[in-house]
Amino acid sequence: MNKFIYMFEEGNREMRHIVGGKGANLAEMTKIGLPVPPGFTVSTDACKNYYEEGRTLSLHVKEELFTSLQQLEQKTGKKLGSVQNPLFVSVRSGAVFSMPGMMDTVLNLGMNDETVIGMGDLTGNPRFAYDSYRRFIQMFADVVLGVDGYFFERELERYREDKGYKTDPEMQTEDWKIMIDIFKGLVEEHAGKEFPTDPHEQLLLSIEAVFDSWNNERANIYRRLHHIPHDLGTAVNIQSMVFGNMGEDSGTGVAFTRNPSTGEAKLYGEYLINAQGEDVVAGIRTPQPISTMQQAMPEVFAQFSETCKRLEEHYGDMQDIEFTVERGQLYLLQTRNGKRTAPASIKIAVDMVEENVLTKEEALLRVDPDQLHQLLHRRIDEGFKREVLVQGLPASPGAATGKIVFDADDADRLVKEGEKVILIRPETTPDDIHGIIAAEAVVTSRGGMTSHAAVVARGMGKACICGCEGMKIDMQKKTITMGETTLSYLDTITIDGTTGEVLAGEVPMVEPELSNEFQLLLTWADAHRRMKVRANADNPEDAGKARGFGAEGIGLCRTEHMFMDAARVPIVREMILAETMNERKEALRKLLPMQQEDFTGIFKEMGDLPVTIRLLDPPLHEFLPDKEELLIEVTKLEMHDPYGEKTKEKQQLLRKVRELDEFNPMLGHRGCRLGMTHPEIYEMQAKAIFYAASSLKLSGQSVSPEIMIPLVGHVNELKAMRRVVVDAAAAAAEETGVNIEYTVGTMIEVPRAALTADKIAAEADFFSFGTNDLTQTTFGYSRDDAEGKFLQRYVDDDILEANPFVKLDQEGVGRLVHMGVSLGREAKPGLKAGICGEHGGEPSSIAFCENESLDYVSCSPFRVPVARLAAAQAAIKKAQTPLSV
Amino acid sequence: MNKFIYMFEEGNREMRHIVGGKGANLAEMTKIGLPVPPGFTVSTDACKNYYEEGRTLSLHVKEELFTSLQQLEQKTGKKLGSVQNPLFVSVRSGAVFSMPGMMDTVLNLGMNDETVIGMGDLTGNPRFAYDSYRRFIQMFADVVLGVDGYFFERELERYREDKGYKTDPEMQTEDWKIMIDIFKGLVEEHAGKEFPTDPHEQLLLSIEAVFDSWNNERANIYRRLHHIPHDLGTAVNIQSMVFGNMGEDSGTGVAFTRNPSTGEAKLYGEYLINAQGEDVVAGIRTPQPISTMQQAMPEVFAQFSETCKRLEEHYGDMQDIEFTVERGQLYLLQTRNGKRTAPASIKIAVDMVEENVLTKEEALLRVDPDQLHQLLHRRIDEGFKREVLVQGLPASPGAATGKIVFDADDADRLVKEGEKVILIRPETTPDDIHGIIAAEAVVTSRGGMTSHAAVVARGMGKACICGCEGMKIDMQKKTITMGETTLSYLDTITIDGTTGEVLAGEVPMVEPELSNEFQLLLTWADAHRRMKVRANADNPEDAGKARGFGAEGIGLCRTEHMFMDAARVPIVREMILAETMNERKEALRKLLPMQQEDFTGIFKEMGDLPVTIRLLDPPLHEFLPDKEELLIEVTKLEMHDPYGEKTKEKQQLLRKVRELDEFNPMLGHRGCRLGMTHPEIYEMQAKAIFYAASSLKLSGQSVSPEIMIPLVGHVNELKAMRRVVVDAAAAAAEETGVNIEYTVGTMIEVPRAALTADKIAAEADFFSFGTNDLTQTTFGYSRDDAEGKFLQRYVDDDILEANPFVKLDQEGVGRLVHMGVSLGREAKPGLKAGICGEHGGEPSSIAFCENESLDYVSCSPFRVPVARLAAAQAAIKKAQTPLSV
Repeated sequence: MNKFIYMFEEGNREMRHIVGGKGANLAEMTKIGLPVPPGFTVSTDACKNYYEEGRTLSLHVKEELFTSLQQLEQKTGKKLGSVQNPLFVSVRSGAVFSMPGMMDTVLNLGMNDETVIGMGDLTGNPRFAYDSYRRFIQMFADVVLGVDGYFFERELERYREDKGYKTDPEMQTEDWKIMIDIFKGLVEEHAGKEFPTDPHEQLLLSIEAVFDSWNNERANIYRRLHHIPHDLGTAVNIQSMVFGNMGEDSGTGVAFTRNPSTGEAKLYGEYLINAQGEDVVAGIRTPQPISTMQQAMPEVFAQFSETCKRLEEHYGDMQDIEFTVERGQLYLLQTRNGKRTAPASIKIAVDMVEENVLTKEEALLRVDPDQLHQLLHRRIDEGFKREVLVQGLPASPGAATGKIVFDADDADRLVKEGEKVILIRPETTPDDIHGIIAAEAVVTSRGGMTSHAAVVARGMGKACICGCEGMKIDMQKKTITMGETTLSYLDTITIDGTTGEVLAGEVPMVEPELSNEFQLLLTWADAHRRMKVRANADNPEDAGKARGFGAEGIGLCRTEHMFMDAARVPIVREMILAETMNERKEALRKLLPMQQEDFTGIFKEMGDLPVTIRLLDPPLHEFLPDKEELLIEVTKLEMHDPYGEKTKEKQQLLRKVRELDEFNPMLGHRGCRLGMTHPEIYEMQAKAIFYAASSLKLSGQSVSPEIMIPLVGHVNELKAMRRVVVDAAAAAAEETGVNIEYTVGTMIEVPRAALTADKIAAEADFFSFGTNDLTQTTFGYSRDDAEGKFLQRYVDDDILEANPFVKLDQEGVGRLVHMGVSLGREAKPGLKAGICGEHGGEPSSIAFCENESLDYVSCSPFRVPVARLAAAQAAIKKAQTPLSV
Repeated sequence: MNKFIYMFEEGNREMRHIVGGKGANLAEMTKIGLPVPPGFTVSTDACKNYYEEGRTLSLHVKEELFTSLQQLEQKTGKKLGSVQNPLFVSVRSGAVFSMPGMMDTVLNLGMNDETVIGMGDLTGNPRFAYDSYRRFIQMFADVVLGVDGYFFERELERYREDKGYKTDPEMQTEDWKIMIDIFKGLVEEHAGKEFPTDPHEQLLLSIEAVFDSWNNERANIYRRLHHIPHDLGTAVNIQSMVFGNMGEDSGTGVAFTRNPSTGEAKLYGEYLINAQGEDVVAGIRTPQPISTMQQAMPEVFAQFSETCKRLEEHYGDMQDIEFTVERGQLYLLQTRNGKRTAPASIKIAVDMVEENVLTKEEALLRVDPDQLHQLLHRRIDEGFKREVLVQGLPASPGAATGKIVFDADDADRLVKEGEKVILIRPETTPDDIHGIIAAEAVVTSRGGMTSHAAVVARGMGKACICGCEGMKIDMQKKTITMGETTLSYLDTITIDGTTGEVLAGEVPMVEPELSNEFQLLLTWADAHRRMKVRANADNPEDAGKARGFGAEGIGLCRTEHMFMDAARVPIVREMILAETMNERKEALRKLLPMQQEDFTGIFKEMGDLPVTIRLLDPPLHEFLPDKEELLIEVTKLEMHDPYGEKTKEKQQLLRKVRELDEFNPMLGHRGCRLGMTHPEIYEMQAKAIFYAASSLKLSGQSVSPEIMIPLVGHVNELKAMRRVVVDAAAAAAEETGVNIEYTVGTMIEVPRAALTADKIAAEADFFSFGTNDLTQTTFGYSRDDAEGKFLQRYVDDDILEANPFVKLDQEGVGRLVHMGVSLGREAKPGLKAGICGEHGGEPSSIAFCENESLDYVSCSPFRVPVARLAAAQAAIKKAQTPLSV
């Protein structure tokens, strides 16, 4: 027979899945001898049983319940329903995962016309007893019988008006007795039955009500939002009541063992003398800072401080505690790990190591790497209450304020005049690049996380919101409309690229910080991690930033952004539109010194750290004008001046754009497929790399270029492209007289590459898993299309556990990564392998990489500290996992 | 030490890789005692050695060569260079894979000023001897010394003119002697050295020349075209000469053992009395049919017929034979399996079973399934010499002739007036569907094998060419230009959808045939195959065709083509453009009876055979007007009538089109993702299936619907969509009172589905591998983009072995299919699995399916006979393969 109920003494903190989070902590505190009012927990198993039995408490559960109640009565020396020595209990839900405020609570259970007298006698305060009684009726009616509190409030209001009272404290014992009768009448009227005066009946009904509340609408929505399984059920904690409102030697409060905002090692919180928890919440009286308790109740404060310390040491973490003082006696009602800001999280972890509460390993595991991220960007002050006009995709993190502009030229001009601007466009193209560079941030109404705007902005570490479909842009009127609000050219807005939110006007900001504690924590992380952390960086600025954040190399240097520079786009187009190989080579000849300069800058920043350079990847049409805009232009020209020179010129351009146009560019003529059909482009790029490396080597700096061929699906592609690079290296060495050490590897970013990794390894010095594209092809999702159209819904509806572009899908994509690494290393033991998709900066994905024995992760510069910590956590956890698993 | 040279007696037909195809067959014929002029083969190993040694014959090879020559001299009793009894040899290349005419041959080697006298004496015909000598000089000079034959022809011409001769036969012995001197002078002049008179030197130089010819340009191009490895090398056959030009009792000819065109069991070929092989080729004299040899040389003919029979029995196949008769003595110079037409191939295989030459298994293996395909479509007469105007992608097989039209309405109107038309469009859309139905065939200049035109035409079994980029369409002038040729509206063209070729005018056609032999062969195939063969069919006509060809069910019934019917497109658009759920449901309510009618028709055709119906798959924007055309229209309207009603209406339509527009539709909001966000569509389709099935069941016909959910990537998608189908089934059963047996399964067409097939199997009654899309996602290729832009080049350059959309890529995609089947069956033993991509009709892919133990293949109706044969071949071969492999 199952056991359904556990006395607090029987449980511990490991039993969260049976007795819920709250029950587990109450049990744990009881176990270590802290003053917890006695009680027991009706387990989640009982809840499941309740639903299995068609929403009925089974006989078995009821029997255990009354046995447990007897034990509680023995322990407290009180008895439920007794007039002389009545026991009162609270009934609180306590789920496995915290669902704050989502389910119901009943306090003071056990009250009736007899026990109220006993309480009055015992406390010497009949008025308090009757006040408690009427509160209980109202709460019970609301929670258990479904009678809205409004009816009770209205009658109380009427009564006070009749009596001429302004506040409740003016109500006397007799007044409350009258109200109790009125309240009972209300119950009968609205619930259609008498208020139950039998405390045992009250208890059963309350437990049922809590179980029922597991399935109420708000709980269901909350679980959906937070991806909590619906079949876990909730536990119910039955705990003997203690009263903080028994006079000046009583009180109640909430405290953190350290400051949750700054991390300062000092009690933080507030309390009220002579009050119950409700009063704190109701906000009628202003609570006092916890520090003042030292003077008001010195002994209790000392005991409380001592208890906080014990709890922290016991849990090895900062605690969030609810307590009540009843006549000078401290009781703990709840403890849990306290939520905290990112700076606090770091400071607490570091301090606790210095206090010998935590080992460094434990401290490293305490800090949520995702939380660090916010510290690395300018951000909106947490204290500021946001009024969000519209929300788009959080395409590039950070916050920015500026005046609205709709055109790259305007942006450029205004910034030169000293303004700060935010560039708003339906989409961006390479033509807008000078505007993006000038602007503080970019917002687009179309496109996803991999759109031009998103990729360029992330590359520049500039805030960006994409796919902001709720923002209607009128390019002619130069306005944006979001719901009721319309803003115009040069109006000021603030955007939060971390959340995707757009706010009106200017708002308070916090600058990024890398505190001493943060630095220290990261040095510990470095000592504990096995994997290297590199950054994705395409230019010297980002490379510099990355080194500043501790990157140990560049894992992905995309060369296409160099092609998108405004000054170069005309030459790139010349190359694309070339009709003859000579014309193309001439354009490439002009590009070469520019590329060389790019590489020189990056190599200089990175010193002898490895720099993985990916040769040109995107389809060529990305460098041409937008087809739709051109089509409109040509249509207009054809109507006005059908035989004009400009018409002909644009028609020809349109023809070329159409020729290069693709149905599915993601799966089209790009990556090494471009190198295969236009080896002269890759040759130029390789030469630029070797020229840059050679001249640096001559000046005494050694460099470590790793040349990466994108989108390889068959070993023969890599073989051919490797040959182009090797030949370019030989030619460059011949010309410069300098030999450069280099390696040639490939991205693994289409399933076929992973499936045939053994073959591909033969031609590769390294593998870099491009998990963005690998996720797209493994799922068959175009990220740009999926995120706006169905992916969010999939995540909301629990079809998928998480957005696979954010967290690596270990079950599917991960299986391919596993095959890729193992097949590759079977064929070539010790083959270097890393990851350079955006997952490289996401903690759960980093843990996966550690378990797959990758050599490094590479992520955006701002994510490097996150990755350093996450890699350390993964290594520590892996070491802790028994080998047999 | 390697052996480099093999006497014919030492070889056999298994040694093709060492002695080449010709050498192996000469050895085999020698082995079985047929009259082959003695000789030996210098092996491919010698060729490789020649290249390894820097294009030099090593001492070792030379030593073996002279030993072999001595053996040959002993065998023939003649001696190279001897005046009394000279040996003459031919030197012919013979590669592992036939490369006809690609490499060089030298005849009559051994001739010089002395041996020519010996030959004159021996033959009693000095004129013949000197003629042979001058021919040898010319041939040797051309092949070995690189002197163009033109110089020799010119001098001969001049001499004849001087002498007043009109033809060579007027030349006398003395004339030839003079020419020989002149020819020798020409060699010295152009080759810069004397003509080598030492026969041993001649032999060495000739062997080197053949080895060199392995690497000449035309040989290299040929190998690239036919995907023959470059490192195989060629063998050289040295064979004693026999002379067919020694008088009326001599001759030479070429024959097939059966008619290669019809398969009739009768010798077929031609010969010339008193001639050498050259004369047959030169076409100066007209050869006689081989049958006349019976009267001219009855004994030889009898011997030849007997020999042919022996060869057929020995090789178990029809032979293509070269022979020479020297003074009444028959010699065989070559035999090989003869090329034949598809009807001949079938007839020969069936006849040979009846003649007890072959077992049924052997006969089944003799017929190339790919060749059958041409018999199932109307085709251009093989005898007709094509002048191809332009070539596009062979999107749907078959040939058709008709007048050019550029517009679906024109097509429809003209066909109603009794014309035959071919519809030419840049691309087609659902708006063109009535034009496609009316036309004989469709040609588009854009789009690939999966474009709208291609898919619709294949579905209708109508010839189609897509992506015909060499055809410039001028829609305004109504002309098409292909190279120099421009054709206009209503000009007649013929297209061959099997090859992608466009021809001018009308050309002779052959109607499809299913001969008795063909039928018989297929019944044998049915008895030998394990896998079922189903067809992909979307309408009753195709279903009927499929059954006619022997399909055992429908493996893929696409429902989107039903949506594309011209009458329905407006309702489908109503559904898509609906602003409210009610509007959408109203449109679906109108579509339901139409869908029901579709399914009723198909079920009626298929009886109780299984019918797998795939619920709606393509993205909704495919049913809307083309974005570009609409954009042009709106741009024009905005200029002419910016505030008009029509402008507003079109602007709104454009907005919706843009809203649904996708960057990568292939990876977008389609398949079950559509069903997940619009379950009402799948619900309507499921109900239409169950209503159709119910009413048929009531009328006494049982049906077997299998409902297939497309594009599942996560088991939760299938789970949710399965629920929609199950609920629709229950609702329909409730309404109709009829219970229908059905199953619900899924396509495995994205890598993630294959990788997590164990999970997905839990919700699936069957798997159908959609290898078209699986190939696209595994390679990361958009078929529409790849085929035109780089895929053909990949195949030409041997980056890929074959187009993976034609032949299943077993290494990559096949690995996923393997995982899908094995994981699926691990989780659910005996899970039914089939393939419904176009690979289902391709022999090598069918063999793969057999080896992976799939239950069925499904292909287009016209491919069903091909698949029946290929499945039988696969089963036979699998049974022959030792288990340990």
